[in-house]
Amino acid sequence: MAVPIALFSAQFSTPLLTNSLPSSPVLKRFSCSSSVPMEHYSDNRQLKFEEFPYVSVPHKELMVELVSTLENRLGTSLLPCTLPSDVQYFENQTGTAHGSLYVRSGNSASQVDFILGSWVHCNLPTGGALNITSLSAYLRPSTDAPNFLIEVICSSPTTLILILDLPPRKDLVQHPDYLKTFYEDTQLDKQRQLLGKLPEVKPYFSSSLYIRAVVSPSAILFSVETEPTQPIQIDELIRDHISPVAKVMLDTWLDLCACAERRLTDDESKTVAKRDRINRNKTIEIDLESSFPRLFGQEVANRVLGVLREIYNS
Amino acid sequence: MAVPIALFSAQFSTPLLTNSLPSSPVLKRFSCSSSVPMEHYSDNRQLKFEEFPYVSVPHKELMVELVSTLENRLGTSLLPCTLPSDVQYFENQTGTAHGSLYVRSGNSASQVDFILGSWVHCNLPTGGALNITSLSAYLRPSTDAPNFLIEVICSSPTTLILILDLPPRKDLVQHPDYLKTFYEDTQLDKQRQLLGKLPEVKPYFSSSLYIRAVVSPSAILFSVETEPTQPIQIDELIRDHISPVAKVMLDTWLDLCACAERRLTDDESKTVAKRDRINRNKTIEIDLESSFPRLFGQEVANRVLGVLREIYNS
Repeated sequence: MAVPIALFSAQFSTPLLTNSLPSSPVLKRFSCSSSVPMEHYSDNRQLKFEEFPYVSVPHKELMVELVSTLENRLGTSLLPCTLPSDVQYFENQTGTAHGSLYVRSGNSASQVDFILGSWVHCNLPTGGALNITSLSAYLRPSTDAPNFLIEVICSSPTTLILILDLPPRKDLVQHPDYLKTFYEDTQLDKQRQLLGKLPEVKPYFSSSLYIRAVVSPSAILFSVETEPTQPIQIDELIRDHISPVAKVMLDTWLDLCACAERRLTDDESKTVAKRDRINRNKTIEIDLESSFPRLFGQEVANRVLGVLREIYNS
Repeated sequence: MAVPIALFSAQFSTPLLTNSLPSSPVLKRFSCSSSVPMEHYSDNRQLKFEEFPYVSVPHKELMVELVSTLENRLGTSLLPCTLPSDVQYFENQTGTAHGSLYVRSGNSASQVDFILGSWVHCNLPTGGALNITSLSAYLRPSTDAPNFLIEVICSSPTTLILILDLPPRKDLVQHPDYLKTFYEDTQLDKQRQLLGKLPEVKPYFSSSLYIRAVVSPSAILFSVETEPTQPIQIDELIRDHISPVAKVMLDTWLDLCACAERRLTDDESKTVAKRDRINRNKTIEIDLESSFPRLFGQEVANRVLGVLREIYNS
């Protein structure tokens, strides 16, 4: 399939917007500016999710490849996207913030609940722009296997935040066998180490403790800062280092989580469903409910968040 | 009380010994060398826990102050230490590795299950020494409040690893109210940030994913490396930065966890007890069972680990 699917990671986008950077000069960069003209895509047409506009070529190629891999592998078990067009694409009144959401649910026989992709572009008062792209996949309580998540946040040509993980769906302290199956035996931490040894890369701490608690112990949470005189480095880093790691992580998720069976008892399935529900509601609350109105205005935020809440709780 | 109590953090000591550094040249430093003479404490007397021998003055002062604070505050609710003398102090056959363990249980009315302190000293083939000091406090299932843990590992005069946390006793993803009470409202992350902004300090990742999963999202997990020409810096760092942070963490734990009531239903209490049991057994297994025989020989390891297992499962 050529059509990629990306999702707005309700899990992570907004802590980065609302929590990581607020109350500081950096926050201002995340209030969308109306003073910066949109040089491209100014024809007011409905930008499509799969276009990944505004981001660099390596950044777009990364996201397109991940979405394609996910769609190709899951094939017809995914239903078509039925989001309203004004949720598939939305912008603020002044046209300085743009967003796209894409959701495909799994069919009734699939372990996949839905996959969700997104991009957000927002002009910054400094003259630059904030670009967030994300892709997540959520499984049903018929399995307790981890979900998948990637989010790439660029707030300048020389900085990047990467969140890449298979977030667990059980308490790992109580379930060391689950930790072994999905994290130790898969050696996912080696992927984290591969990126972590690059000199431009530093551990990233979300300001939301809930988000920190949601991710796995081998989660890739990195911030990257390159020399301003060499902005090409971020693109090289995406192409040569982040892309290969992201592909390994997604392949692992597809093989071991989405396409492998886990036999749960009814009680186990109910426990997983309960944890999923709390997690989804909490992450929408702390992630999106404060930042989306600020980025897109209350009306657009209500529309998009209303649809997201339905998807998360269906 | 003048007698300090420290405990061998079964939670954390050994991953550092067995997992962080093995299969590498660094591992050799953690096999106790018999080629380096013990210049001090060579009279073969029973070294006491509260002496904290071998470590620097600021390091010792830190541990003594924490132990004293804990004992003074908990007072008579702690029973005397009844460990056999050959568990309170032990060494390997060649006298190159020394360890001390100290445990005091809470009385029947106390929420404190036990407090556990330890130090380990081990000569390194390079001529230096490894010193680990730790102090933990474990609560009973009558409360679900977090435990307390500090561990300081020095493998040279210019390097240090610090583990300082209130490890949660519930799954934080399922219990955001618990996260709010013990971690968000207490602003413990500010303490982490205070240390994290020092240029010598870097995030530390235990090679054990289980250990990473056990700690809280505001856990202080740092490695410190100063310039070899200025070894005084580590001591300054302990005195001026680590000590104040550790005191705040311990005071928070005493006020909010050890000395405050949480009313649990029987079911909640059973759930906490089950999680505690799994956690304790798992951490002894992955932490101590491989490193203790290597450090102290099988006989000493069996003796000390046997006592620890009894304490953890009583």
